[in-house]
Amino acid sequence: MVKKKPNILVVNDDGITAPGIKVLLEEMQKIGNVVVVAPDSAQSGMGHAITLGRPLRLDKINLYEGVEMYQCSGTPVDCVKLAVNKVFKGQKPDICVSGINHGLNNSINVLYSGTMSAAVEGAIEGIPSVGFSLDNFSHDADFSYCRPYVISITEQVLANGLPKNTLLNVNFPQTQGFKGIKICRQAGGHWVEEFDERIDPHNRDYYWTTGKFVLQDRGEDTDSFALANGYVSVVPTQFDMTAHHAIPELNSWSFDHLEGTTKHSKGEK
Amino acid sequence: MVKKKPNILVVNDDGITAPGIKVLLEEMQKIGNVVVVAPDSAQSGMGHAITLGRPLRLDKINLYEGVEMYQCSGTPVDCVKLAVNKVFKGQKPDICVSGINHGLNNSINVLYSGTMSAAVEGAIEGIPSVGFSLDNFSHDADFSYCRPYVISITEQVLANGLPKNTLLNVNFPQTQGFKGIKICRQAGGHWVEEFDERIDPHNRDYYWTTGKFVLQDRGEDTDSFALANGYVSVVPTQFDMTAHHAIPELNSWSFDHLEGTTKHSKGEK
Repeated sequence: MVKKKPNILVVNDDGITAPGIKVLLEEMQKIGNVVVVAPDSAQSGMGHAITLGRPLRLDKINLYEGVEMYQCSGTPVDCVKLAVNKVFKGQKPDICVSGINHGLNNSINVLYSGTMSAAVEGAIEGIPSVGFSLDNFSHDADFSYCRPYVISITEQVLANGLPKNTLLNVNFPQTQGFKGIKICRQAGGHWVEEFDERIDPHNRDYYWTTGKFVLQDRGEDTDSFALANGYVSVVPTQFDMTAHHAIPELNSWSFDHLEGTTKHSKGEK
Repeated sequence: MVKKKPNILVVNDDGITAPGIKVLLEEMQKIGNVVVVAPDSAQSGMGHAITLGRPLRLDKINLYEGVEMYQCSGTPVDCVKLAVNKVFKGQKPDICVSGINHGLNNSINVLYSGTMSAAVEGAIEGIPSVGFSLDNFSHDADFSYCRPYVISITEQVLANGLPKNTLLNVNFPQTQGFKGIKICRQAGGHWVEEFDERIDPHNRDYYWTTGKFVLQDRGEDTDSFALANGYVSVVPTQFDMTAHHAIPELNSWSFDHLEGTTKHSKGEK
């Protein structure tokens, strides 16, 4: 029996010319039919943004021989939406892989990351999806150690599927020779901004966003802990943001006085 | 004993001139010291985007008499970060309220919404935060029925606090006279895109993002159900995106063959 090769959508947020996406598409070509739809410029920190106020471009390009590639003027999430709707024409790919990001997307960075938001969008569309990120912002980052992990994780997702409404957030530490894989939860942490204030030639203030990440969670079951100890972290990630545990507490709040309020407010405006 | 008036940060994503933020700041002035930091243009659909590749402007303006207001060239999340860092100068406000959004942010829209992402960012910064949205996209939307609910919910949050690492996603249905408040979970649903393809005067394709929301969840405990039945929906929302329930299943996957992989791959590159 001949197994059908899977159709693989490759996206990223560093832009279509980034070395990280080249590594990812090269690995994916070993196991499937690859289509790349990626931003035409760097889109780091775009989170789950979509483009509504201006039109989008989607252009087929020939960047690497034998690879079907499209560059998009929009965000990483726009890329996934256009890929599903205009490139795959509603025939969903078997898997959506995003990255490999130049820089970590563990902990709270899952929210800011265009790489992860593209994977989240894939999952929302019902496609098994994985985001990959390496702890190295450099254009010349060495992704070679990631390659066997990328293949193995992708093959396991293709073979096993993923639990309903979940995707994977995979992060690689900046070491040569990983100790293995740890299934983790997202570590608690946040960025403390240090805006770099400057004066332009017209004497007006402006700011560059800079900051440092503050880890607020020493749990040994977190992605931050795994990465700090040389492991590849894999966080099953979901897009249901409901704090289910908080529902009983909120139900104890008293809003009874409001139920008739709208009648009284009718005349106020 | 004189109670200190709370310091209230007001943000939105429709832009600082939107009628919805005027309603919100007017209500907040009744109970606290208000500071508004909002985008200088419409930022709908910006999700959790932050501005990294270009500098930010933050300008004090006098739009409404007696209100401390700043317009920002960045995203809703940038507004919160700049407010905390540059306006409140690290002295966190007692509450962050976002909106009132022109248009619903229930179900999966929590991810795309700049209004909700601003509230999420407030919560990440440790500030009790609430996003408010009305089921009416119109500039001339009638927010008058929302007013007593906005005040009551804000006062309850100030009095009770919120469970750790949670915020509230409040949505108002498009009816005059709400039936009351329902504490809900986020309904399952997604957008099906229908890109509007056009040809520009230079004979190049471009696309406008359009689509329709498809509800995939008939649960009577969801925000979508509450709204459809005339109730104000309140969803406790969290920024831990870990699919905790999926961890055991992923731990059953076999990655053992990888632990030594990196040694072998050293020579490959």
